[in-house]
Amino acid sequence: MPPTNPARRRALTDAAIALLASSGVHGLTHRAVEKEADLPSGTASNYFRNREALLVAAAERIIELHHADTDRAVDRSVEQPATLADLLTESLLTAATTLRDRYLAIFELQLEAVRRPVLATALAGLWDAAVQVTAGQHDKLGLVLPRESIHSLITLYEGTLFTLVTAAPESVDRNTVQALVRSILDGCGPQQ
Amino acid sequence: MPPTNPARRRALTDAAIALLASSGVHGLTHRAVEKEADLPSGTASNYFRNREALLVAAAERIIELHHADTDRAVDRSVEQPATLADLLTESLLTAATTLRDRYLAIFELQLEAVRRPVLATALAGLWDAAVQVTAGQHDKLGLVLPRESIHSLITLYEGTLFTLVTAAPESVDRNTVQALVRSILDGCGPQQ
Repeated sequence: MPPTNPARRRALTDAAIALLASSGVHGLTHRAVEKEADLPSGTASNYFRNREALLVAAAERIIELHHADTDRAVDRSVEQPATLADLLTESLLTAATTLRDRYLAIFELQLEAVRRPVLATALAGLWDAAVQVTAGQHDKLGLVLPRESIHSLITLYEGTLFTLVTAAPESVDRNTVQALVRSILDGCGPQQ
Repeated sequence: MPPTNPARRRALTDAAIALLASSGVHGLTHRAVEKEADLPSGTASNYFRNREALLVAAAERIIELHHADTDRAVDRSVEQPATLADLLTESLLTAATTLRDRYLAIFELQLEAVRRPVLATALAGLWDAAVQVTAGQHDKLGLVLPRESIHSLITLYEGTLFTLVTAAPESVDRNTVQALVRSILDGCGPQQ
């Protein structure tokens, strides 16, 4: 009988995310995941038949957690109004500090996907979903952004986050992030 | 006597960049670099005493090539005037297509730097130099950007490039890049 314990599957996936952040994509093996999750040898391959399945599960879990967090922030801001700039600043700052490992892991996966079509396909699907989720959040916030701008916004958000999580942690503070969010929303073109 | 042949050093560094793009940071060993450059075993460690020295040399070379390209583009545009939007579009498009391997390599190095303080220090120095170089290029173009905006501009340029080089190659075309450059320069805030 195939194993179907969701808590155990989640423990293995979370261990995979931690390993991606600490050792890079190369450190991610079934055995390392079992050790990290403190589960017996053989458990991981019961849940993930190969390394690619493990990589895809980690990517899906990270994006699921990301959407859950941003959904919560949007719901909160409906009760306690916040500007889009505030929401983005808070989201980027938390992602680059408290949750740095999670986002280091997704960037490891994005680079690995260049060499793994199965992972690339999974990430492309997650990107399409992110556009839908973001559009829904903007609706809730009463904001109007053309679909093209949503693509750009996600690209600049993601790109900025890459720079932030790979920067020296002590260089990442609220002021830096606020300035970047201002540039994302208002642009950083030259003064004529 | 230590080896001092610059052409050979460059061949080894270029091989390192190609390996970073094709196999990721884990694929980068002295032996693999020698094979890729078609040079005898032992050559690489004559030039780079350890793996970190090889990683730093690859990063320095990529940034040197990048600045040489952008300097050339700026010089050309002084004779044949181009807008900053045109320059950035051309630069990002070339970086994400023709020169994709080069930029995949630098992003591999940026993620690896999270785990390697020596590499992180080298990259931080290159970042400071990039701010200087970019400011000088803006001067040449007669553009006025406050120092803070230059930081933001480099961050958004770099971040956008990360998204572009990790995207499916067929999804990267001039229109997509132009829209992103518009967002970088003019912002992608909501319409009120």
